[in-house]
Amino acid sequence: MRISELATKTGVPVATIKYYLREGLLPEGVRTAPTQATYGERHVQRLRVIRALIGAGVTIAETRKVLAVLDDPSGSANDLLGAAHAAVTPHDEGDIDVVPAKRLAEGLGWREGMCDPLALTGVARALQGLQAAGFEVPHDVMTAYLDAIRQIARAEIAAVPTESVEAAVRYVVLGSVLVEPLLLALRRVAEQVASGERFGVESRE
Amino acid sequence: MRISELATKTGVPVATIKYYLREGLLPEGVRTAPTQATYGERHVQRLRVIRALIGAGVTIAETRKVLAVLDDPSGSANDLLGAAHAAVTPHDEGDIDVVPAKRLAEGLGWREGMCDPLALTGVARALQGLQAAGFEVPHDVMTAYLDAIRQIARAEIAAVPTESVEAAVRYVVLGSVLVEPLLLALRRVAEQVASGERFGVESRE
Repeated sequence: MRISELATKTGVPVATIKYYLREGLLPEGVRTAPTQATYGERHVQRLRVIRALIGAGVTIAETRKVLAVLDDPSGSANDLLGAAHAAVTPHDEGDIDVVPAKRLAEGLGWREGMCDPLALTGVARALQGLQAAGFEVPHDVMTAYLDAIRQIARAEIAAVPTESVEAAVRYVVLGSVLVEPLLLALRRVAEQVASGERFGVESRE
Repeated sequence: MRISELATKTGVPVATIKYYLREGLLPEGVRTAPTQATYGERHVQRLRVIRALIGAGVTIAETRKVLAVLDDPSGSANDLLGAAHAAVTPHDEGDIDVVPAKRLAEGLGWREGMCDPLALTGVARALQGLQAAGFEVPHDVMTAYLDAIRQIARAEIAAVPTESVEAAVRYVVLGSVLVEPLLLALRRVAEQVASGERFGVESRE
């Protein structure tokens, strides 16, 4: 199909598609004339993934890295998960103290060498942010976080499809990154529900 | 203290403090001369909160709204939670279908009128993002999400301090927004741990 048909089919404007092509997020189509190229189902799929990642707040540069992981399923599912996480994690940490993060991660079953170091850095940065605000998570709440998050991760990894490498990669990489907004949104609803249960609620349609 | 001392004490550059003053995030100091003002402990605290919010990815405009909620503890804890969530939720949704979000939220104990409508819109938008990417959360995994998130929210709300309105507001508003990066970072570690447990792991220091 032509670029205009690709735009109609995916709802992505032609100018945006051209931008993704220039940025190397979308592979070139097959040239049919010096100024014309034809695109296939592969481009439709790829555009959907790009839109979803960018819609989830992933930057263009990070999206490029996640796509590179999706395109190179040579590693194990486990490597890919680390690579996908690394792609969406800032790298310029300076020297952040990861000791408190490690202590906390042990509550998730983490032991030395069990994950990409950047994942721990992410926990360290989050803890630093809370500390900077003078906000302390109560002990019981932190225990609930660790238990709940472990439950989530186990259910997610137990559901990794194994019928094909492509399916596994797609599930691991996209599921990990794209589900984040859903979990945060569900937490906000659940907090308001729990708050209504504890403090009473006036109905607000 | 002078603005330069405020900068030293908080680690926030003078130029940034002036920017926050211009943007109305930080209240003016007490004028001591036409070009000089003096700042107090209240400014130190406020700067820490601003830095934490912005560091957590909250925009300047959203930060202003969260601070307004913090400054006006006239509503109930429950109202404040909704207001804080609304402050960090985009408002330009057009007409998004919230029916699937409502069905899902019922798994969290949600019933009609129990939360700020924007919180449900957030769930709807997240579901739309997943659908756009052609990604389906397996049923068992979704069940695990709902159970785990409900557990998290209940523990959080049970820990709301009630000794003072200020303490409750601070906990609810900041805890809700600032803990988000921590939960996401913990999930990434937990996923890599669970993935190592299922698929085997080569140590990667």
